[in-house]
Amino acid sequence: MSTLVSRLRESLPDGAVLVDDDVTASYAHDMASFCPAGSPAAVVLPRTTEEVRHVLRVAHDLRVPVVPQGARTGLSGAANATDGCVVLSLTRMNRILEIDPVNRIAVVEPGVVNADLSKAVAAHGLCYPPDPSSWEQCTIGGNIGTGSGGLCCVKYGVTAEYVLGLEVVLADGRLLRTGRRTAKGVAGYDLTRLFVGSEGSLGVVVGATLALRPAPPPQLVLAAEFDSTAAAGEAVCRIMAGGHTPSMLELMDRTTLRAVNAMTRMGLPESTEALLLAAFDTPDPAADLARVGLLCEEAGASSVVPAEDAAESEMLLAARRTALPALEAVKGVTMIDDVCVGRSELGAFITGVERIAAEHDLTIGVVAHAGDGNTHPTVCFDARDPEESARARASFDAIMALGLELGGTITGEHGVGVLKKEWLERELGPVAMELHRGIKAAFDPLNILNPGKVF
Amino acid sequence: MSTLVSRLRESLPDGAVLVDDDVTASYAHDMASFCPAGSPAAVVLPRTTEEVRHVLRVAHDLRVPVVPQGARTGLSGAANATDGCVVLSLTRMNRILEIDPVNRIAVVEPGVVNADLSKAVAAHGLCYPPDPSSWEQCTIGGNIGTGSGGLCCVKYGVTAEYVLGLEVVLADGRLLRTGRRTAKGVAGYDLTRLFVGSEGSLGVVVGATLALRPAPPPQLVLAAEFDSTAAAGEAVCRIMAGGHTPSMLELMDRTTLRAVNAMTRMGLPESTEALLLAAFDTPDPAADLARVGLLCEEAGASSVVPAEDAAESEMLLAARRTALPALEAVKGVTMIDDVCVGRSELGAFITGVERIAAEHDLTIGVVAHAGDGNTHPTVCFDARDPEESARARASFDAIMALGLELGGTITGEHGVGVLKKEWLERELGPVAMELHRGIKAAFDPLNILNPGKVF
Repeated sequence: MSTLVSRLRESLPDGAVLVDDDVTASYAHDMASFCPAGSPAAVVLPRTTEEVRHVLRVAHDLRVPVVPQGARTGLSGAANATDGCVVLSLTRMNRILEIDPVNRIAVVEPGVVNADLSKAVAAHGLCYPPDPSSWEQCTIGGNIGTGSGGLCCVKYGVTAEYVLGLEVVLADGRLLRTGRRTAKGVAGYDLTRLFVGSEGSLGVVVGATLALRPAPPPQLVLAAEFDSTAAAGEAVCRIMAGGHTPSMLELMDRTTLRAVNAMTRMGLPESTEALLLAAFDTPDPAADLARVGLLCEEAGASSVVPAEDAAESEMLLAARRTALPALEAVKGVTMIDDVCVGRSELGAFITGVERIAAEHDLTIGVVAHAGDGNTHPTVCFDARDPEESARARASFDAIMALGLELGGTITGEHGVGVLKKEWLERELGPVAMELHRGIKAAFDPLNILNPGKVF
Repeated sequence: MSTLVSRLRESLPDGAVLVDDDVTASYAHDMASFCPAGSPAAVVLPRTTEEVRHVLRVAHDLRVPVVPQGARTGLSGAANATDGCVVLSLTRMNRILEIDPVNRIAVVEPGVVNADLSKAVAAHGLCYPPDPSSWEQCTIGGNIGTGSGGLCCVKYGVTAEYVLGLEVVLADGRLLRTGRRTAKGVAGYDLTRLFVGSEGSLGVVVGATLALRPAPPPQLVLAAEFDSTAAAGEAVCRIMAGGHTPSMLELMDRTTLRAVNAMTRMGLPESTEALLLAAFDTPDPAADLARVGLLCEEAGASSVVPAEDAAESEMLLAARRTALPALEAVKGVTMIDDVCVGRSELGAFITGVERIAAEHDLTIGVVAHAGDGNTHPTVCFDARDPEESARARASFDAIMALGLELGGTITGEHGVGVLKKEWLERELGPVAMELHRGIKAAFDPLNILNPGKVF
């Protein structure tokens, strides 16, 4: 048994340290394509903060990299193992410690599954808005590491806006508390936000105090069909410039609609170029849908269908939820881009992606959180075909370049990880990168924490 | 002429560098009591980013401290001069560069006055929510430096939530761009949020991209009187636990009500122990006020008066706006605390402040943004009386200690500055302070930027 494993086991219970190669290999990857992963020396499944501290102290002493993991639903390779690392899987630290309806906060361990928290707070009439597509698997710790978003963001914002305070184990095993339990607070630098989206490179989150909202009324959904993506983009602009605040504003292109039909026989309108789904969870959602429907018509919608009730809304949402699995079924594998542009650039961006798909002879479906300009161009390819895989990777990069040209960002909510780290400096520039390295050195001078990720 | 001044003037226009002692002395202080201030060597009033870069390059070369300033309405001494420093007043960089209703953003220079931005975006049907009491004087740059709040926060959050991206001149004169123009983005560490609330200690903000919201409908206000602060606190808990989202939820104690009456003859109910003002800017505010009025009655309100229209609402709000000037008039000078506690602790906190006032034989009025637990206990004292001044300072500290005991923070929205820097480590602990020093060293290794502030 290696020194690493024997020292890890000194203060950890039986079953907390896994070393069998087959088992550790199953922890090597998150869900991103094209991201290399190494072989972990061990996988540790701690149940307490003290156990996490022990792991970090040992790793720090022995200069062994530590890769923190949640449910490995990430799409950028940020949770991928590196050779000889300790994978620190936080999934067993999954207790909801407190739900406080007066102060509208929840205190949770990092391994709590997003959907479990949502259900638990719903029982108190509350809501934890961030809703990544993987919400039934992904963990709050992973959401914090990535800075996750979801369908809710157009009205309710991203994970970062719901993290009030953190407990973090630092690279050398020291315990840090950041932030607060109160609604407001500006004492010192905002260390809390610095950890959100830092992909485990600055510390290991072992506890989080989260802000909650009152549960909104059920949303009502409208579907609008368009003969061009430009018209759909125009509708998005009119809706947002018109002062509306939809609880959801999603767009699917023709490629995506076809894929959904092929998988589910939903009978979506394949001849249309874009389908827009708008939802409102206001006191009178039908009135809001009527106003937004009119704006869609003014932008050139060929059909506008407001749902009459929750059941019809659910049917329309099911189409959106099926989009990614359906695109995956096209060729077996997908690579999901995450470019966010200004809403006013949405039409130009989607047109540009169509051009990139044609140039690379690929199927690329676009689903987008249109209300906040966050698009997920999804490249479909056959991973067994090296030549097609190379074109897929090239198109992925072309899409990021297009996003930057249009003033956007390479990642709206999936993070940088391994997949986009060559691109980070292109977006941020050398001065910002130098500050990144300075911050990393202040938090993790030995570069123990998730090395080789982000930058 | 000193080397500093001659080098500053080399690349700055006439009138941009002020050295007359009487003039520079007028830039020495913000509005905080009990905060020492030194004599600046020069005051510089740049109009462009390039001019700011020049100032920083010179100061960096000569190892001269630079103190960035907005309108000096701050309440913690963060903008106070240190001896021999360059005061860098950003008030002439006051252009609104862009207002974009589709993407709901504004791009501004740091010297734009908060109220000027509010009015400009209102013309587009938009709203920039952060509304500190000093909104007619304070600048966006100052708001960002401090992490300002206001009355709006209970529904709309603080300044930090509206800053999407920044342009920052670093300590050595390099220009940094952080963040984005898009609604979402998680590319790299959140440098934007690190600057918000950093009180000019990490860089000089020379531009900001701000998020805007659709302008809400006009709010309608309700006033509720209580025979005890505990009952008023209970009403706040019931309102928030009941799932309501008021656009404002403010509390004034008896001391404050008396002071307002003394100044304005408003005839507010002096016999009551606490007055709660609740407002809604929802589609049907009267219905929301009715529901909240009922909760106030259930919590023991002796009187509940909903405004019937905008004019009545405005009258009630005027009382709240007069609170701080009225308390100032009691003894000539005030010291405004900024403790934020959980809403559930509001009653206990105000009772504790009453005890502290009695123990220190002082008049301390409490006004609070009750909806988010952010209180402003306001100590009234005669600054010409050294013994009373000492008691005032002692009571201020006792109030912060009480806030920390109740799980709160020493500052909800005013910042740390000079006034609370001894207290910061008590709140954050030694590990967080070490990380603060590490971040500061990464951004400003020579400690040029606003030295001696925050920590």
